[in-house]
Amino acid sequence: MAVWSWKCYFWEVFFCNVFQSIHISHQHQRNCSLSPPYLPATVVNTTQRLQALRAAMTPLNVAAYIIPAADAHLSEYTAPRDARIAFMTGFTGSAGTAVVTAMKAVLWTDSRYWVQAERQMDCNWKLETDSFIGSISDWLLTEFPEGGRIGFDPFVFSLKTQEYYNANLAPGKLLLTSIPDNLVDAVWTDRPPVPPYNLTRLPDHIIGRTWQMKVDVIRMEMMVNPYKPTALLLSALDETAWLFNLRGNDIPHNPFFYSYTLLTMQEIWLFVHTERVSEDLQAYLNSSCVQSMCVQLRDYDAVRGDLQGYVLRPGVRVWVGTEYTNYALYEVISAQDKLVTSSYSPVLTSKAVKDDMEQRILRNAHVRDAVAVIQLLMWLETAVPQGKETELTAAHYVNECRSKQKDSRGPSFETISASGPNAALAHYSPTNETDRKLTVDEMYLIDSGGQYLDGTTDITRTVHWGTPTAMQREAFTRVLMGNIEISRTIFPSRTKGVNMEMLARRALWEVGLNYGHGTGHGIGNYFGVHEWPVGFGSNNIPFQEGMFTSIEPGYYKDDDFGIRIEDIAVTVPAHTKYDQNYLTFDTVSLVPYDRKLIDTTLLSEEQIQWLNRYYNTIRERMGPELDIQGLQREKAWMLQNTESFQAGGSSRALSSFTLSIAALTMALLQHVI
Amino acid sequence: MAVWSWKCYFWEVFFCNVFQSIHISHQHQRNCSLSPPYLPATVVNTTQRLQALRAAMTPLNVAAYIIPAADAHLSEYTAPRDARIAFMTGFTGSAGTAVVTAMKAVLWTDSRYWVQAERQMDCNWKLETDSFIGSISDWLLTEFPEGGRIGFDPFVFSLKTQEYYNANLAPGKLLLTSIPDNLVDAVWTDRPPVPPYNLTRLPDHIIGRTWQMKVDVIRMEMMVNPYKPTALLLSALDETAWLFNLRGNDIPHNPFFYSYTLLTMQEIWLFVHTERVSEDLQAYLNSSCVQSMCVQLRDYDAVRGDLQGYVLRPGVRVWVGTEYTNYALYEVISAQDKLVTSSYSPVLTSKAVKDDMEQRILRNAHVRDAVAVIQLLMWLETAVPQGKETELTAAHYVNECRSKQKDSRGPSFETISASGPNAALAHYSPTNETDRKLTVDEMYLIDSGGQYLDGTTDITRTVHWGTPTAMQREAFTRVLMGNIEISRTIFPSRTKGVNMEMLARRALWEVGLNYGHGTGHGIGNYFGVHEWPVGFGSNNIPFQEGMFTSIEPGYYKDDDFGIRIEDIAVTVPAHTKYDQNYLTFDTVSLVPYDRKLIDTTLLSEEQIQWLNRYYNTIRERMGPELDIQGLQREKAWMLQNTESFQAGGSSRALSSFTLSIAALTMALLQHVI
Repeated sequence: MAVWSWKCYFWEVFFCNVFQSIHISHQHQRNCSLSPPYLPATVVNTTQRLQALRAAMTPLNVAAYIIPAADAHLSEYTAPRDARIAFMTGFTGSAGTAVVTAMKAVLWTDSRYWVQAERQMDCNWKLETDSFIGSISDWLLTEFPEGGRIGFDPFVFSLKTQEYYNANLAPGKLLLTSIPDNLVDAVWTDRPPVPPYNLTRLPDHIIGRTWQMKVDVIRMEMMVNPYKPTALLLSALDETAWLFNLRGNDIPHNPFFYSYTLLTMQEIWLFVHTERVSEDLQAYLNSSCVQSMCVQLRDYDAVRGDLQGYVLRPGVRVWVGTEYTNYALYEVISAQDKLVTSSYSPVLTSKAVKDDMEQRILRNAHVRDAVAVIQLLMWLETAVPQGKETELTAAHYVNECRSKQKDSRGPSFETISASGPNAALAHYSPTNETDRKLTVDEMYLIDSGGQYLDGTTDITRTVHWGTPTAMQREAFTRVLMGNIEISRTIFPSRTKGVNMEMLARRALWEVGLNYGHGTGHGIGNYFGVHEWPVGFGSNNIPFQEGMFTSIEPGYYKDDDFGIRIEDIAVTVPAHTKYDQNYLTFDTVSLVPYDRKLIDTTLLSEEQIQWLNRYYNTIRERMGPELDIQGLQREKAWMLQNTESFQAGGSSRALSSFTLSIAALTMALLQHVI
Repeated sequence: MAVWSWKCYFWEVFFCNVFQSIHISHQHQRNCSLSPPYLPATVVNTTQRLQALRAAMTPLNVAAYIIPAADAHLSEYTAPRDARIAFMTGFTGSAGTAVVTAMKAVLWTDSRYWVQAERQMDCNWKLETDSFIGSISDWLLTEFPEGGRIGFDPFVFSLKTQEYYNANLAPGKLLLTSIPDNLVDAVWTDRPPVPPYNLTRLPDHIIGRTWQMKVDVIRMEMMVNPYKPTALLLSALDETAWLFNLRGNDIPHNPFFYSYTLLTMQEIWLFVHTERVSEDLQAYLNSSCVQSMCVQLRDYDAVRGDLQGYVLRPGVRVWVGTEYTNYALYEVISAQDKLVTSSYSPVLTSKAVKDDMEQRILRNAHVRDAVAVIQLLMWLETAVPQGKETELTAAHYVNECRSKQKDSRGPSFETISASGPNAALAHYSPTNETDRKLTVDEMYLIDSGGQYLDGTTDITRTVHWGTPTAMQREAFTRVLMGNIEISRTIFPSRTKGVNMEMLARRALWEVGLNYGHGTGHGIGNYFGVHEWPVGFGSNNIPFQEGMFTSIEPGYYKDDDFGIRIEDIAVTVPAHTKYDQNYLTFDTVSLVPYDRKLIDTTLLSEEQIQWLNRYYNTIRERMGPELDIQGLQREKAWMLQNTESFQAGGSSRALSSFTLSIAALTMALLQHVI
């Protein structure tokens, strides 16, 4: 799945916030200029909760209170109990910032959500059609020219967010004021509780490294860090889950659970809702002791206080990854001689390189996942011309197919099923209101993935069931060329993805086309579908052997169609003529592309060779699986759709056989002429 | 010219400091283990000057004094009066850091200079074979475990250098202590004076924008800066020189002069050695008044005090480019509400885009420069087989040829003339001691450039006068493929160079070869040969139309040979099928490559087409110039060396004619078979 605006990581800043709004009906939006205002039924009455929040602000003497969309772990997706903006404003979109003052209440969100906000917010709220911190700061500076205190909950601010607000507000004498008890939570009487179910551990047969082995490795990394940290603080939810081989279910589509870890050379403090840790798990974690390989369970809410206590010890120094540590924890260790920072913790950089077991099972999960996608594509070919299928029914179908696969744990994100112009909105998911019928006259894009006990998947295919236009074929082929060029490139180990990312765009650039998002992201083993810091962005880490990433160039024509071709690939050794320390990609997604959309005359000989090798791999890996599952029709469909490509009409697509003939002919002609 | 280690900008950090030492004789190095020590004649006696420095340190209570190689403008090349390390240690290499304590004196420098340092330093000095600040800090921490004050001159520290030392030293209780009066200068009795000659202005016929127009533009940039700076501080020497269309000669090969500028909306303060500003220049600068378009001349040495005075004014805020501002100026405005920062000042980013006049004259300078390089290459072809020429005579010859060209102002850097294994040292320049005879058995690399009143040039050609090995041909061809792939690529305006840099490496990577330096750097109009922030590195700015950069992939085989192919190119519009806002490169260096080293069977059809178009351009632009200069032999040589390439033996190199025949043949065969 292409990441749209989350931290603007994946869609680099230049492109953030430039997309147009979804084309749904503008009816049923609020109209605050009428008297009385017109409020549709979808609106939430926020008068009382705003009153309550302002009452909570008064004793703290804050002129304004900032409510961001983040949770305390700076997660990409958040749980319902962290939907503070939705509670305060009624607006349920995933991105935005709300600010409440004594007299005003304002929501900033990006263009994807403007219509939705106008349908969900009552007239207590003003909508600002922008989402940059700079704009919010400017608004605050204008609102309070004489200065004042601006309150925020440091648990839901990243270090960077705090720094950015601070740098913008300080010149105007606005004092950014940390209030560690969240004011929204204080007035949110029916806030969803922490889910009651227990945590689970991964079964032994899919574990390559026990948690004790991982702790050893991470402690080793702490020892070789030149800044000599005595402790490592883990804040991102997948850091703690990875370290202990545990999983939860606190966030939709993400098997995470609320947690922090403080790892020292002598102790391991695991901050969780301790009542969720069963006796079996307590034994598994060796939680009855306090030595260096015993996991001490501490209450989730005690993390700031306990960390503060640790920092007061003489000679300690805490290592934090700045990208995922919230400001509430950062500020208690911010003294320079107590702090060691890197962008990412050693857990995230270790996790980025999958071990042999993880590689094998993640590949396996992709084989089963491909069965579901093949079932979908085959079914659509016959169902769509009958005129009854829609974006929603297609999304439902693929989810059903996945759910029947072994060890399925549901979708890894909300399926993007988009026909015609809807697909030009790169991160569109269908709703009852926007649902579009699938027809042979429009292109269709489906970007979906599954969670399996052994791995997480994410794949996008774009198809056309009728006759594509020349422009659609050209654009699709050039997107495919980008996918192939990245996939087949050979590069020195430790090359950064950002240095080769343009290979995915080059064929598009040649004719003046482009796409406004990043080209790939890491992916987990029954974990996040976007698993940083692997990928092709400027803040991703260099590639080493055993890293999994998506490769997903696209092209989007406003109001017309959208194309994206996404595969997951793993970095594997490339044996070059002069040096062995080189890598290339091996694609683990195993679903053929729509042949109808490929103009082979545009492809180079190397690209056709790659495509044929890939199709051969699909046959080798999917054939036996489809046999085992007894899916003979699907197998026939797969075989039909993975036939070798012959050279196209272009010079560059001539097969080597053809070229030998050509050379021979030339030799003959030279003798003749 | 490839930049070796200057700030590790161009040769990215990963590769910094990993090259081997120059293979010159190890005789005549000092031997401090003998008693008495053996000291060659090349050694400088530093006993007295060290005594004097220590005497200056005592009253300031500093345990150690750090002496970096930088000047107050963080210039790439420095003037003799800034060669403080050479004065203190005897060592004259361009990179290093010296540290003096009460008992010890230590020099850190990288592997290029180890032999040289052992020949030039007496036994007062210890050599540390490393050059990272981390190593120097570690040494200081070990030396003073109980803490102490570490002195430094903030004028020769960048902001980053100060921050890095501070972060490393603070945990160990070492207090980094700013001492704005340089202690070396205080004891350097025969320090070279500021050169006495006057500054000069560029003649009107090569000026596109007057200094008043430039001041207007820069003030406009200040106005639109959201942080509302009231002043802009210019510290890099080419910033002030560019703004006022002035040139000097204070640094070898660089037409710069010692200067700073403080530009406000109401005033212009030019800090120079005022005695060097002639009456004519005073009138040109309108220096007799104090309005917004009058340049007030202030003494160069008053900059810190005057800036301090300005900062004390209420409501002011000073914009500095952090990459080129020394810590002495930064620390007087470091209060957060007085400071606006960006990596580069708006002068550097404006200067990066050449205006029409600058583009035209810089192209013209390259035409004349190519005459000199063609003369050299032609001469070497006949002179080398006679066995009398060396690296030094070749360097001398090309310098002579350049000096005869119109508006020549000497070389733009010390010529790199390197034969056989010497060329594997990417930044080697010949000396009497290392000079190598040129023969038909070795490859030869010449990297040279000229200063002309209208432009600065920089070009590298690698040639072989005998029979290259298969590996040499392959490596050369793959380096050339890299040069071509960057040159012919089409990309959206504002793409960063770092995002396409790998195109220059890809053909090498395919067979496991690579090079350890960056791929290009900006270049000036009678200015620096390395003009940042244009280039292909991670901290270079995005490309816009009208930027000039070098493109210079290479390959270096230790102890054997070195290849580099360097051209200067300018970004020009590319008219694509679907969008106009795209750019490509137009190569302005106009010297053919050595045909003997090109294996056309490796080239793609597109690469051969590019090469033939480039050679056609050389003919079109150089033919008339050689005619005008009456150089008919050179013209014949140029024509002979720019003949079109026919398709090679490879499939990918078939000409379209060949391919038509092939297609025809295939069609026939299909009917027959």
